[in-house]
Amino acid sequence: MSPPSDPDRLARLALSRVAEPGSWPVHDAVRAQGAEQVWALLREGRSSPQLSAALVQGAAARAQGYDVTADAARLAACGGRLLRPGDDEWPEQRLRWPRGGPQLAAPPLTLHVRGPRLLAEVVESSVALVGARAATAYGEHVASELALGLTDRGVAVVSGGAYGIDGAAHRAALSGGRAPTVAVLACGVDVAYPRGHDRLLARIAEQGLLVSEHPPGASPTRVRFLVRNRLIAALTAGTVVVEAALRSGSLSTAGRARELVRHVMAVPGPVTSAMSAGCHALLRGQHGEEPAQLVTSAADVLALVGRMGEDGPEQRGPERVRDGLPELVQQVLEAVPVRGGAGEAGIAREAGVPVLAVQQVMPPLLVAGLVERCETGWRLTALGAGRPAERRG
Amino acid sequence: MSPPSDPDRLARLALSRVAEPGSWPVHDAVRAQGAEQVWALLREGRSSPQLSAALVQGAAARAQGYDVTADAARLAACGGRLLRPGDDEWPEQRLRWPRGGPQLAAPPLTLHVRGPRLLAEVVESSVALVGARAATAYGEHVASELALGLTDRGVAVVSGGAYGIDGAAHRAALSGGRAPTVAVLACGVDVAYPRGHDRLLARIAEQGLLVSEHPPGASPTRVRFLVRNRLIAALTAGTVVVEAALRSGSLSTAGRARELVRHVMAVPGPVTSAMSAGCHALLRGQHGEEPAQLVTSAADVLALVGRMGEDGPEQRGPERVRDGLPELVQQVLEAVPVRGGAGEAGIAREAGVPVLAVQQVMPPLLVAGLVERCETGWRLTALGAGRPAERRG
Repeated sequence: MSPPSDPDRLARLALSRVAEPGSWPVHDAVRAQGAEQVWALLREGRSSPQLSAALVQGAAARAQGYDVTADAARLAACGGRLLRPGDDEWPEQRLRWPRGGPQLAAPPLTLHVRGPRLLAEVVESSVALVGARAATAYGEHVASELALGLTDRGVAVVSGGAYGIDGAAHRAALSGGRAPTVAVLACGVDVAYPRGHDRLLARIAEQGLLVSEHPPGASPTRVRFLVRNRLIAALTAGTVVVEAALRSGSLSTAGRARELVRHVMAVPGPVTSAMSAGCHALLRGQHGEEPAQLVTSAADVLALVGRMGEDGPEQRGPERVRDGLPELVQQVLEAVPVRGGAGEAGIAREAGVPVLAVQQVMPPLLVAGLVERCETGWRLTALGAGRPAERRG
Repeated sequence: MSPPSDPDRLARLALSRVAEPGSWPVHDAVRAQGAEQVWALLREGRSSPQLSAALVQGAAARAQGYDVTADAARLAACGGRLLRPGDDEWPEQRLRWPRGGPQLAAPPLTLHVRGPRLLAEVVESSVALVGARAATAYGEHVASELALGLTDRGVAVVSGGAYGIDGAAHRAALSGGRAPTVAVLACGVDVAYPRGHDRLLARIAEQGLLVSEHPPGASPTRVRFLVRNRLIAALTAGTVVVEAALRSGSLSTAGRARELVRHVMAVPGPVTSAMSAGCHALLRGQHGEEPAQLVTSAADVLALVGRMGEDGPEQRGPERVRDGLPELVQQVLEAVPVRGGAGEAGIAREAGVPVLAVQQVMPPLLVAGLVERCETGWRLTALGAGRPAERRG
């Protein structure tokens, strides 16, 4: 594998090192000015409309003496490659979302991947299995059964490479082998974390995919785990929480899946088990959230997420989303342009509705991921347009 | 306990012997003509508008040589008493419902009870715990915990006296003892069925209540179990299915609870246990039915059914039911009389809506138990009137 050399790609690699992935300001700056320009600004310690002085200062400090070609060589040395929007392998439809809930970090600018599979192909038909590190024998058994059942049916199993549920899911998927398994990491794709999973991660790199937003050698942190969780949710058609305590990190993956309009599923367990309490909370629907869907088998999961791939939810979803909306909302949505954007007054004129109606309708559509803000006002997302997204690398 | 001697009471006792409880024709005939008249008709083999020749023939055969005073003496001998609508102890509000779903048998005409408690008082604050006979250790453990938790909080535990979940619930309730337990039987209150529960049933008769629609000595049959299940559901504010296989009888209790607008709750369990599969099906909501509510503890149950008793759901329910209805439906409902009944045209006039609207609105109100048919058309039920039912024994 030759190291990345394209300037945009190198700039994105550098950004993954000096700016924490998931930052909306950096994401917006790259959208507005391109990665090379943003990398130049950060390196030189210059702020911009999107980039605050504080953000630039921190990044500039990390950029001191940083040699991006060394990182590029290190990535290549471990057999990794760098993906960016526009690449065939970039799962564009999965990785675009608007600034929505307060906890939803920005989409990735780049992905470091290791393994013989093509990411976009693999995740087209994929489900996330996540859960407690301190899993019970019951939880690991169910995770294995689900992973076997899913991969047997050609559905890739995405998880986080951790002990417990994640490990059981990856292992079972590897043992079946009819569909690959993907570990999405909160550290570099060359880092064996957790240490005890070094052989498991190596096998996944040989047969499936290791994916990370972080450059080689990066260590995991609490924040990185949380930001990583949105990526697990985003890459898949749905997330199954197999076992989770009440304050488990897996619940954050479920939360991001909900924000990203993915299926949120949970496996019930004994009410006497603290490791199922988080699943039961999800199934009950806490804080007014829609309850997760109860699944007991791979067949249940597939019945919910549908046949994925050619007629999968990402192709079928948009029509269904729009069809379910009230007439006024559909009217407004039809008046929002795909390119260029339009202001609220313009949209109201086009839709033949009061401006107030447009103002009331846009925020929920934003959260639902059907529209997004742009410099000239609002435009449709790929989801809102109800068709495959254009590439806007 | 002296045997019942009042002619209406004796007639109801005789009907419980010669006509299968739950029969709508017999129920309607008693409402229209009184129990004594219906008993006379059946004894003499005479049919009537409500009573088909076939029904009368079967009952008359059973009435041949039948001595109701012997049954009355037998009931008194086992310490039992006969309740009928109008008695202080008759839980009127729980035991009135309209001809609704095809599986919902008619309300009881009489109840045979044994035990030192007053039925109406006991069920005012009560929950049904039901489940598999072939329960697992997990299921019995959870049933015990729920029963203890509920009776500790003064909530009576109603169940069916069977092996497995029922037995665990009754036993734990007896051991706590802060609220009584009620076994609703598909056989006579003097019959030890199942045989292995003879001591348990005797203890319930000493400390709580045995309840049945069947006269002394009656044996349980498959149909009687199913008809009995509606009584468990009806007597309580909600039914919790603790463990159930996919084709378990407990699911019929849950179904009747749903038809009777009671809370339907289920305890999740390991997805690897066939004895939790019925609960998971309930939690998922099968055949388009509303999903059952997931409960893991007595506190969960109480959070759902609310504080029962003085401000319990039966007092608070009607207002809430009416408040939630669309305006047109409320308008129609307000035009339905409590007494005497009115035709659809009259109701439409009174409500100021088209007759067609009344015709469309009445069937769902009937199923919801807010209105009922009478000879002159429609009238409100006690639930529909939003106040305690009058006694119409």
